[in-house]
Amino acid sequence: MVVGLGPGNRDCFTPEALAAIKSAQVVVGYHTYLDLIPDLIQDKEKVATPMRGEVERARQAVELAAAGKTVAVVSSGDPGIYGMAGLIIEAAGGRVPVRVIPGITAASAAAASLGAPLMNDFAVISLSDLLTPWETMLKRLEAAAAGDFVIVLYNPRSHGRPDHIKTAREIMLKYKSPATPVGIVRQARRGQEQKTLTTLGDMLNHEIDMLTTVIIGNAQTRTEGDFMVTPRGYRL
Amino acid sequence: MVVGLGPGNRDCFTPEALAAIKSAQVVVGYHTYLDLIPDLIQDKEKVATPMRGEVERARQAVELAAAGKTVAVVSSGDPGIYGMAGLIIEAAGGRVPVRVIPGITAASAAAASLGAPLMNDFAVISLSDLLTPWETMLKRLEAAAAGDFVIVLYNPRSHGRPDHIKTAREIMLKYKSPATPVGIVRQARRGQEQKTLTTLGDMLNHEIDMLTTVIIGNAQTRTEGDFMVTPRGYRL
Repeated sequence: MVVGLGPGNRDCFTPEALAAIKSAQVVVGYHTYLDLIPDLIQDKEKVATPMRGEVERARQAVELAAAGKTVAVVSSGDPGIYGMAGLIIEAAGGRVPVRVIPGITAASAAAASLGAPLMNDFAVISLSDLLTPWETMLKRLEAAAAGDFVIVLYNPRSHGRPDHIKTAREIMLKYKSPATPVGIVRQARRGQEQKTLTTLGDMLNHEIDMLTTVIIGNAQTRTEGDFMVTPRGYRL
Repeated sequence: MVVGLGPGNRDCFTPEALAAIKSAQVVVGYHTYLDLIPDLIQDKEKVATPMRGEVERARQAVELAAAGKTVAVVSSGDPGIYGMAGLIIEAAGGRVPVRVIPGITAASAAAASLGAPLMNDFAVISLSDLLTPWETMLKRLEAAAAGDFVIVLYNPRSHGRPDHIKTAREIMLKYKSPATPVGIVRQARRGQEQKTLTTLGDMLNHEIDMLTTVIIGNAQTRTEGDFMVTPRGYRL
């Protein structure tokens, strides 16, 4: 089972996810994720793996399942969105059954904190080029901006690639006004959530890191008090 | 409070959503949504509104809140994705506080049933032209296909617009191979879920209606047994 814990707060993960973890004999995950649920896994076999140990984690999980154990691979957010679901299915290769249990992804969590930026068509793009070629990312940023999508950026900045967010913004500015609302949410729906409402012109003057989700509006997006809203098109 | 019930199964909605509904004095929603939670709302004031009554529903909810009531507007999925969150914030206009409580959206629910189609960048597009001009939709379909996004189609077909899905497919075929995997999920993560794994070439030979979510792969997407997987890029 590949299980999504949602944003991290316990009140954001589903009974289905809870039941899956409870039913597991072994729980596999990056140690930060296991630390979110110590009470649920205290009597279970645990396999805590380091960050970027995704392939090893998938292999171990599949081996344990092939040996007859019930295994839950846990991660934050939705394991089906830039998560472990694909790797587990590939590693399993049909040898063991796989079940994906969705969680609330960062786009939903950040959007809820910002108000309602995703009321119309949107594109989700990760700025991590560890796994996607940079040229592909540029092509997608360009296409999404040209199509006037609301754009959700995952993994917007890390130490290894501080400039991707600058490049992304420059591409946006070819198609979107500098006044376009931009929402920046750090640790969405976790204990220490911080949110910032800014604009495409001003966004780089705010802190953006790997714990952040960035949402860039479309041509209709506007601010309404403390909220960012993309109208769906209803006439009020 | 604008509250997302997720796909519909009770085990897919979050403790946060549950607590919000319990704390409400009035629950407002399309009657199909209220029918999902009869036990939670039996002692509460209820405002059941017909489909397409969104503006009226938003106005009523805000009026009740302005009169001092604690109001929960409920809907399936994530109210922040093509949902009621925007309309409520606009109708409130700062007169009453609004809180959005996210739920699992159809893209996550359908992806989990299909395997792992959303492991890489994706675009979410609604084919309902009730609120978005048809030209805008065409532009977005074209942009998303040109950018090699995985594409999630919401509201893919209704009686009023049976041909939008055909047009969408034709645009996809300008950029994507007919062999591109396509997943069709009806009633994702509800009692009577049906899923179909097909291809862009063959997709119109399967039933697609308003209760369906359609996911069209990118150039890397493939099938792996009964699953649809878009590789994230790890080397196994």
